[in-house]
Amino acid sequence: MHPSETSFKNGIQALELHEDAVLLLDQTALPREVRYAKITTPDEMRHAIQSMIVRGAPAIGIAGAYGLVLSARLHQPEFATDSAGYVRMLLADADLLEATRPTAVNLQWAMNRLRSLLGSLSDQSPDAIRERVTAEARAIHQEDLAMCQAIGRNGAEIIPKGAGILTHCNAGALATAGYGTALGVIRAAFERDPSIRVYADETRPRLQGARLTTWELLQDGIEVTLITDSMSAWLMRQKQIDRVLVGADRIAANGDTANKIGTYLLALAAKAHGIPFYVAAPSSTIDLTLPSGEAIPIEERPEDEIYWIHGESICPEGVKFYNPAFDVTPADLITGIITERGIARPPYPESLGEGAS
Amino acid sequence: MHPSETSFKNGIQALELHEDAVLLLDQTALPREVRYAKITTPDEMRHAIQSMIVRGAPAIGIAGAYGLVLSARLHQPEFATDSAGYVRMLLADADLLEATRPTAVNLQWAMNRLRSLLGSLSDQSPDAIRERVTAEARAIHQEDLAMCQAIGRNGAEIIPKGAGILTHCNAGALATAGYGTALGVIRAAFERDPSIRVYADETRPRLQGARLTTWELLQDGIEVTLITDSMSAWLMRQKQIDRVLVGADRIAANGDTANKIGTYLLALAAKAHGIPFYVAAPSSTIDLTLPSGEAIPIEERPEDEIYWIHGESICPEGVKFYNPAFDVTPADLITGIITERGIARPPYPESLGEGAS
Repeated sequence: MHPSETSFKNGIQALELHEDAVLLLDQTALPREVRYAKITTPDEMRHAIQSMIVRGAPAIGIAGAYGLVLSARLHQPEFATDSAGYVRMLLADADLLEATRPTAVNLQWAMNRLRSLLGSLSDQSPDAIRERVTAEARAIHQEDLAMCQAIGRNGAEIIPKGAGILTHCNAGALATAGYGTALGVIRAAFERDPSIRVYADETRPRLQGARLTTWELLQDGIEVTLITDSMSAWLMRQKQIDRVLVGADRIAANGDTANKIGTYLLALAAKAHGIPFYVAAPSSTIDLTLPSGEAIPIEERPEDEIYWIHGESICPEGVKFYNPAFDVTPADLITGIITERGIARPPYPESLGEGAS
Repeated sequence: MHPSETSFKNGIQALELHEDAVLLLDQTALPREVRYAKITTPDEMRHAIQSMIVRGAPAIGIAGAYGLVLSARLHQPEFATDSAGYVRMLLADADLLEATRPTAVNLQWAMNRLRSLLGSLSDQSPDAIRERVTAEARAIHQEDLAMCQAIGRNGAEIIPKGAGILTHCNAGALATAGYGTALGVIRAAFERDPSIRVYADETRPRLQGARLTTWELLQDGIEVTLITDSMSAWLMRQKQIDRVLVGADRIAANGDTANKIGTYLLALAAKAHGIPFYVAAPSSTIDLTLPSGEAIPIEERPEDEIYWIHGESICPEGVKFYNPAFDVTPADLITGIITERGIARPPYPESLGEGAS
């Protein structure tokens, strides 16, 4: 597939629903190569989510939803006269899609939303069911973009003039429907004040900060300094960092926040230096069913993510490994949680709670 | 050069003085390849230190000393009848060797020791001067090994049964005359109690933890779990870490300690979890001329160390970088400093001071 035939029209985008497929910008190939994966079945979508061709909590929610659209397209012929069977098939695929990655709640949230829709559609024609599922998936996509833009507007308020901002992993356009959460705030702040300074943690093991955050900020003309994950505290001590901004994969009712491994260490460093630490995420990331972060499932990923870089091992054979993809930052280290609704501040059980929704 | 012809006799060793050269175990090639660099001139030694073929504070002190032995061998014919000129030549080479890396004080310490010796030798024959310099360099090497073994004995006391120990970078046999400082403590503790669990930070950008620490521990049959630098706090929160043990490149009179970038972040994480944080280093690493860590020069290294891994870039062109090779951990985060003399504890100005030497 030639990139020029398949690139997206609306700037940096992780995914797009087409008539014959879902097109994913292959995030495992960036920044070396801008390459697209054409996904035509729910199985292919599951593989793409698991292998992180598409990643980022909001983006995998959308990818899961589009995976169900592919399921609806794929299975409609078999169930041309059996709406109940068609719905059961789609519900089964929704479960499989949801099981691909456990930590980010947005995938579960999107699947719940589609399951709830499907529950009301059993008496409709397969054609109508497919159309409703497609429309709902598109709505999830469009709403996420609008939420990110609102997060950017809300978050820009907390960025002082000329601030040094440190971010971890990629909570950008590539991790969402577009614009980004933490990077959405940076984009909005940069629009007002191009003198802000952005620092990106490289984010081992998968280097999303080095590969993706720098790439998408440079596309938008925003200068960025790359550091290793070990340098944050030293930069803070030299007063180069005024705010830390990260995304989230799941936020519990008390504000405890699961995000890319390393976020907790960064939050501790920010606390030790009195630097405000903000989480930016759409409300679809908040899981009010969990009282605290202790109940958030933490995905452990394979050792090859740690051992191998660019096809060559960094360590001898026989080494043991530990590869949790996420950690949980306790709420007491979080200055505020920026959503499309505004900025929630402690005590989070109230500010995030149902009353605030 | 065939490895089997050139490998060292005494287990894992970073360097060895031979009649015709200094042999360095090439630490840039490990663990992929066990390869030796044959160094025959002081210029080659400077290049080897700068490019980190040999690295680690005590080891580069020894390498610098052997570099001066090479200078003595190289220049003796020119100064066969001119002892004063010969000494001036050696002093000039000592300055050049010392300038290769600024942070580790051991290099400066070794050069000072040799300069002081040279100052007393002007009336001797070039032959005698060469022999005295060689003997002094060998003494520096042998004393370092003895200091590491004493550090191991002293430090093993503070390791509880079955402890989880986290270390950063490589403060091992490869960084010293042999046995290691932080890894010397781990070796000594393991000898008493094979149930200790060792975790190694991979230590970006140069991955000394992944490449060197795991390699040398496995050579000695000590199991080790490799983690990225971002995972330490999350392991601590799960009560997997009981002690943090690191080496040092320079320790100021007040206990502030320069060590590999990331050490400070690790010390903050240890503090937040109430985990004892120990520095292990020979007394040659203590710089009583500096009242605090603020005066320690921090080497900044080239961007390619961050951008390139295994010959391929991890980020797009146009990214800015920041690459301090070291940071300074303030004394108030350090539980104790383990030297060959014992364990210094706060207040360090007294326990490290002249009185204690």
